[in-house]
Amino acid sequence: MIDSRIFGHLWSTPESHSIFDEDARVRRWVDVLIALAQSQAEIGLIPTKAAEEIAELAQCDLPIESIAEATRTTGHSTLGLIQVLQGLLSPVAAPFVYYGATVQDITDTSQVLELAATGALLWRDLRIIEDRLLGLAVTHRTTPMAGRTHGQLGSPIPLGFKMASWADQIGRDLSRLDDGRERWLTGQFGGAVGTLGFFGGEGLPLRQAFCRRLGLAEPAISWLSARDRFSDFASAAAIAASTLARIANEVYGLQRREIGELGERPAARTVGSITMPHKRNPENSEQIVTLAQLARAQSALLTDALVHEHERDGRAWKLEWSVFPTLCHSVLTAASLTKALLDGLEVDPRAMARNLALVPASEHLLSLMSERLGKHVAQQTLQQAYRRAAEDRLSLAEALEGVATSDELEAIANVDLGSGPEMVDRVVAAARMRRQSEPEDWR
Amino acid sequence: MIDSRIFGHLWSTPESHSIFDEDARVRRWVDVLIALAQSQAEIGLIPTKAAEEIAELAQCDLPIESIAEATRTTGHSTLGLIQVLQGLLSPVAAPFVYYGATVQDITDTSQVLELAATGALLWRDLRIIEDRLLGLAVTHRTTPMAGRTHGQLGSPIPLGFKMASWADQIGRDLSRLDDGRERWLTGQFGGAVGTLGFFGGEGLPLRQAFCRRLGLAEPAISWLSARDRFSDFASAAAIAASTLARIANEVYGLQRREIGELGERPAARTVGSITMPHKRNPENSEQIVTLAQLARAQSALLTDALVHEHERDGRAWKLEWSVFPTLCHSVLTAASLTKALLDGLEVDPRAMARNLALVPASEHLLSLMSERLGKHVAQQTLQQAYRRAAEDRLSLAEALEGVATSDELEAIANVDLGSGPEMVDRVVAAARMRRQSEPEDWR
Amino acid sequence: MIDSRIFGHLWSTPESHSIFDEDARVRRWVDVLIALAQSQAEIGLIPTKAAEEIAELAQCDLPIESIAEATRTTGHSTLGLIQVLQGLLSPVAAPFVYYGATVQDITDTSQVLELAATGALLWRDLRIIEDRLLGLAVTHRTTPMAGRTHGQLGSPIPLGFKMASWADQIGRDLSRLDDGRERWLTGQFGGAVGTLGFFGGEGLPLRQAFCRRLGLAEPAISWLSARDRFSDFASAAAIAASTLARIANEVYGLQRREIGELGERPAARTVGSITMPHKRNPENSEQIVTLAQLARAQSALLTDALVHEHERDGRAWKLEWSVFPTLCHSVLTAASLTKALLDGLEVDPRAMARNLALVPASEHLLSLMSERLGKHVAQQTLQQAYRRAAEDRLSLAEALEGVATSDELEAIANVDLGSGPEMVDRVVAAARMRRQSEPEDWR
Amino acid sequence: MIDSRIFGHLWSTPESHSIFDEDARVRRWVDVLIALAQSQAEIGLIPTKAAEEIAELAQCDLPIESIAEATRTTGHSTLGLIQVLQGLLSPVAAPFVYYGATVQDITDTSQVLELAATGALLWRDLRIIEDRLLGLAVTHRTTPMAGRTHGQLGSPIPLGFKMASWADQIGRDLSRLDDGRERWLTGQFGGAVGTLGFFGGEGLPLRQAFCRRLGLAEPAISWLSARDRFSDFASAAAIAASTLARIANEVYGLQRREIGELGERPAARTVGSITMPHKRNPENSEQIVTLAQLARAQSALLTDALVHEHERDGRAWKLEWSVFPTLCHSVLTAASLTKALLDGLEVDPRAMARNLALVPASEHLLSLMSERLGKHVAQQTLQQAYRRAAEDRLSLAEALEGVATSDELEAIANVDLGSGPEMVDRVVAAARMRRQSEPEDWR
Repeated sequence: MIDSRIFGHLWSTPESHSIFDEDARVRRWVDVLIALAQSQAEIGLIPTKAAEEIAELAQCDLPIESIAEATRTTGHSTLGLIQVLQGLLSPVAAPFVYYGATVQDITDTSQVLELAATGALLWRDLRIIEDRLLGLAVTHRTTPMAGRTHGQLGSPIPLGFKMASWADQIGRDLSRLDDGRERWLTGQFGGAVGTLGFFGGEGLPLRQAFCRRLGLAEPAISWLSARDRFSDFASAAAIAASTLARIANEVYGLQRREIGELGERPAARTVGSITMPHKRNPENSEQIVTLAQLARAQSALLTDALVHEHERDGRAWKLEWSVFPTLCHSVLTAASLTKALLDGLEVDPRAMARNLALVPASEHLLSLMSERLGKHVAQQTLQQAYRRAAEDRLSLAEALEGVATSDELEAIANVDLGSGPEMVDRVVAAARMRRQSEPEDWR
Repeated sequence: MIDSRIFGHLWSTPESHSIFDEDARVRRWVDVLIALAQSQAEIGLIPTKAAEEIAELAQCDLPIESIAEATRTTGHSTLGLIQVLQGLLSPVAAPFVYYGATVQDITDTSQVLELAATGALLWRDLRIIEDRLLGLAVTHRTTPMAGRTHGQLGSPIPLGFKMASWADQIGRDLSRLDDGRERWLTGQFGGAVGTLGFFGGEGLPLRQAFCRRLGLAEPAISWLSARDRFSDFASAAAIAASTLARIANEVYGLQRREIGELGERPAARTVGSITMPHKRNPENSEQIVTLAQLARAQSALLTDALVHEHERDGRAWKLEWSVFPTLCHSVLTAASLTKALLDGLEVDPRAMARNLALVPASEHLLSLMSERLGKHVAQQTLQQAYRRAAEDRLSLAEALEGVATSDELEAIANVDLGSGPEMVDRVVAAARMRRQSEPEDWR
Repeated sequence: MIDSRIFGHLWSTPESHSIFDEDARVRRWVDVLIALAQSQAEIGLIPTKAAEEIAELAQCDLPIESIAEATRTTGHSTLGLIQVLQGLLSPVAAPFVYYGATVQDITDTSQVLELAATGALLWRDLRIIEDRLLGLAVTHRTTPMAGRTHGQLGSPIPLGFKMASWADQIGRDLSRLDDGRERWLTGQFGGAVGTLGFFGGEGLPLRQAFCRRLGLAEPAISWLSARDRFSDFASAAAIAASTLARIANEVYGLQRREIGELGERPAARTVGSITMPHKRNPENSEQIVTLAQLARAQSALLTDALVHEHERDGRAWKLEWSVFPTLCHSVLTAASLTKALLDGLEVDPRAMARNLALVPASEHLLSLMSERLGKHVAQQTLQQAYRRAAEDRLSLAEALEGVATSDELEAIANVDLGSGPEMVDRVVAAARMRRQSEPEDWR
Repeated sequence: MIDSRIFGHLWSTPESHSIFDEDARVRRWVDVLIALAQSQAEIGLIPTKAAEEIAELAQCDLPIESIAEATRTTGHSTLGLIQVLQGLLSPVAAPFVYYGATVQDITDTSQVLELAATGALLWRDLRIIEDRLLGLAVTHRTTPMAGRTHGQLGSPIPLGFKMASWADQIGRDLSRLDDGRERWLTGQFGGAVGTLGFFGGEGLPLRQAFCRRLGLAEPAISWLSARDRFSDFASAAAIAASTLARIANEVYGLQRREIGELGERPAARTVGSITMPHKRNPENSEQIVTLAQLARAQSALLTDALVHEHERDGRAWKLEWSVFPTLCHSVLTAASLTKALLDGLEVDPRAMARNLALVPASEHLLSLMSERLGKHVAQQTLQQAYRRAAEDRLSLAEALEGVATSDELEAIANVDLGSGPEMVDRVVAAARMRRQSEPEDWR
């Protein structure tokens, strides 16, 4: 679906494509090889001339089809690329491309760079989403609506309280990305089995130079079969996507015609349903939920892949090749669609008021009656009154006649939002404080 | 990865692409629309002329980019296609393409046709694999090797016994596909909410004609939100892929240099390792294990998607759009690689004998000594002897001296394969019988 | 949770406990050992006296604590049981309990018997549920309600159509159980590595007698590491549980106070909410959804466990020990709660009518206007009218004034259920036919 | 399995039972209720006398059976407990137990306390494991063995390098626990829908007092349906369990009789196999792998449960009730078994040397020959030599005759561990530094 010309826009974004399209990925491999050659020249392992020539590969057109064919012929993951690159180099430089490296040195390091690019976009988008949600929460700090538990109408909340709860969770999603960054953005360079055996005593200085050139941290030890960085990132990303899905699923639910409290504004020329022309479908909301489920499944696979055997395990490792891009596409698309969803979010306070009127203000009334009757008697009295009302289809006023005092009934006429508005304020304050100590850009 | 030009061959096959590439899918949608128009003309709902003109769309070039653009503009899954098709039709025919249908009528029916195409290839390949395994099992009906439990060497088995166990499981995979076929290959035609409300009293005859034209069974009732057919197929396919992974994982394990009993013959010009030139990696075996894990994850997602709300649930339904093709690509590729694996399977009976010699024939010896000493005394005696041998690094002969009688030691000099060879025969016979009552082609 | 005294009733049933409680499981192991000894006596492998004495163990109290302690001491799965049983037997019989068997012979065969017991209960309950649903579908064959797609109100359907769709899916769940039974109910008897090496030429006759005594089919070959029977059953069971979750989730959704079409009758003395006394929560519906999710996760784990190494793989095998009982408890509890849910299902046709009135009969009207204007013009005209109605908060009548003709408006005043009622009839007929060829009891 | 008397010790530990056994859980709920009453008295919401009497419930015997029965009767999660507690209190205090709270205030806060207890044990055990691994890594800093990639023998590594790679990953597992602690250990107190509506203006001060008494952070906003804390913890715990599984799986693999490099020392009186008395099974290793898989599945379920609807969603929430304890039992048991595994780990350097001798020192030789011939010629020359050796069954010396110079052959006679030992040192140093800034106890 990601590469579908017709539906690709629902499963990927132009930005996610710019990271994971094949041209970009091969280009990134070449960039890593260039950094390697430059580091090797810096250490004196290969001729400076060779490194310079290799660095020029950054400007070359890469013949993907030739690489593909050589890959199929050799059955080796990177030999096809190497042979093609060697063909582009003079005999002086050719032997020094990919010098002493192993496949994972290139692909793992590249995958970390992809993680970095994805993380940076996700960071940016989550912050935009958090801003938008905080703004909405403040706007609707006292807009009353029914809280709902078990799918049933309950005591009132401010709409801003719901939105602040979303923002609060996004805040923790950001913290997770912030905490993990240092752990994740680490280069890989170890050679055949991780010991840098090819390079004699110069392996560690070379690794340091290589990582520094790419702006990545140097690992204490090669991590060829210690894959927790990816599953850790995937967990954080999948949790963030699920936060977005929680928001989107709420819009989906509250956009129901019978509820009508929130709505997704359709784009100008979109068509809801051909056979039922009256319909407006919450397409974005649905898609965000779907993408988050896809992201969670990829995260689970990456965590399964942690049980990696020996110094490299093709079974678990190759799984990452398929799963990691899908994870990143899904998460970035969910974020992009959520921004659009929030930008076009429609709020109908009248519908909220209408639905709220369906609910007896039972928590508030219970509190008042508890003072008079004790909590447990009050509770039973009310429960019976509500049951009778439902059975005999009485109005709320009828049902409470003789049960609640007129003072009590008067008191509950005003919607009581409890500490909901104050909690909105606290979320805003907490976010503001967190922002002060976190970087603007993730990378 | 499926669409990668460089690595796509590890995640898909030319045949799986011929089913799921975008051109083929859109073409299939058009075929379904043609069948619909023809059925409608047959029933007298639309002019025969219109149906004839629509049928000619089968020969048209489909401008995927235009469809894609119209899809993005309308935000509707099939309206882009319809608009493009209408542009290709005369004003007489244009109003009658997609007449009274809903998206799922087209996409679900198409997805069933994709299931049919995938199932047919999988059926063919599993039968080829079963044949190959049965042949190997007969060839190695008495080739002795060590059985292994808990990763440890155990009593001897014939290699053919292991292979027959694989074939036996493939046989059940085939039975599952056979049992499910009738349930799965069912058309979808229900209109907006499944009641065929658009067609008045002619809905059911139209549905019958439509399904018959496509060679699909007619459902008792529309199944817009009853998705068990796909998850059921996915389960069967994922279990079959896991059977293949069980085989491949065994080859991976027994190809270890220290064991060396089975091996994957590398293709002619492939290169194992650049940095470690001596290595031969079990690439196909690894990839089959990986693909099966991917297939299982897709199957789990399709089963999650069963909790479909109301008469259509975009969240669960769209998940299928992403997951179903990946499932089919993965399973078909695993089958294709398994055929190659078995065609090039290398067997080293000398290595089997060498490893078998490391094991005391303890089950056989225990049986003999049990007759003499009673089973539990025999067992304890042997256990002590083996423990002492391990601790003092005694040879097996030294360890058993004075423990087993010379008759007993003589008896165990011959490898005892138990009923292993007879079980091979039974698997062959059972497969032969099953084949007599199952069709050559799945569809 | 399953063993919780406080909450266990939400995660298990008395019947599921009668299968999986530890006493019952150990008792079942003893039953299998008795069948083994009797078969061995029958073949002449052990003295008839010994088998008779062993058979009396069926009447003994089993000292679970002693078994537990010996299990911990020996670190062996069944040796603790054996030692305890030997202590209960005379020296004549003691050596002949568990004679020549391996752990999996006992535990796998027992697990198949547990599968059989679970399958039988599930079969019974799904048939009860199907009966109930078919009855409801017939009762509500023409009770109109709004169909809903993408969470939005759509064209009308009969409530019975929705219920028949559930019944239809249950019918396929039953077919899956029916198809699999023969494959699944197969004994295991293979000894150490599956070749029955301990028994010389008498292994296969012994296996035949053993399986026959237990009412199980004889396998062609030992299936120590071919575990597809369990994952296949688990898939079928998890799909069935998900059908139940689809039903329950629908009740959850339609019980919303704002919708109010379906409802779960609370048990007599239950209390909905302490803090919000008016509330009635769809507790059973929620729990069924939860249990199905749990069942699906167990099924996925059992499918993962298919990649079993060599002739026994403790990693994958032991996973079954934990997962299989949870699967069965969850599925049986979901079935039990669904029966209760349907028995107390409340239907409010007035609410259905009220919600239906919110929907313009757009599919029907579109059909009528298509005859007049052509389908695509009709569709655009209607779409604009509905959009204007929503924006200007016009009534439906106002919005359609001048758009539809008075004849058209009259025609749509009557709810059109399309072929919905006929589809109900077809589901009933199909179920009746299926029942004729399927057994009353699953086992 | 967790509650099995016979096998429970493989799926849980005495410590995990002390957290999750039903008595402990109900006791914890009562502790939370006591803290609530005390906080309410502190704020002046309820009489001090009542709070004092409620505090004495900490010493009462709790009649689980009565609670269970009342729970079943009321169908309410905590009302059974409340009724029983009220029965234990005087009429003065009875109305003030559970005053204004909702179920989640009690159960969520309790679950956070359970998370805290689990996290503290996991923290302690992972540190012990890290210590042990670092010690082993130093001990075997230069013990040579073959590295293995794709299951095939490769260039040499020090055993300590493998162990340091494990320790390094454990270090990140600890960092994850460290980072998350502050986010996770947060109380819940919100009343019916999270706004503390019952308490008027005193809700927030009460919440502050309540959290402080329990040693938990105060949230910015109620998190009734923001469940990321649990899934975040579960991800970290499941990743840590998978690190342990990576270690255990390696021991399982290297304990194979044909490899024999590492081994799990069996406990004194354990019995490996009844039917095959010579066998020693890696039981602990297998079980750790199994437990980690179980933990990952629970983590995936908790992440699925993030898509929580409205202000409480019984479907997603109740899933936690079943899944969270299983997660914690599994992870803690995996940690406990890993400690035992490492304490009894057997290392056989002779076996390592024997297997290493099977490998041509190809990476080192390639490096030397590259200097002479250029890398790509060297590589092809060696690859051909090794292929010929394999085909003609030549010894390594024979195969390299005329290919490598005598100087080169001499040089590779000494095993070259590359920078492996230095990487061990770096891991040790990094761990030492990390320890300085992290607390001894997690909580």
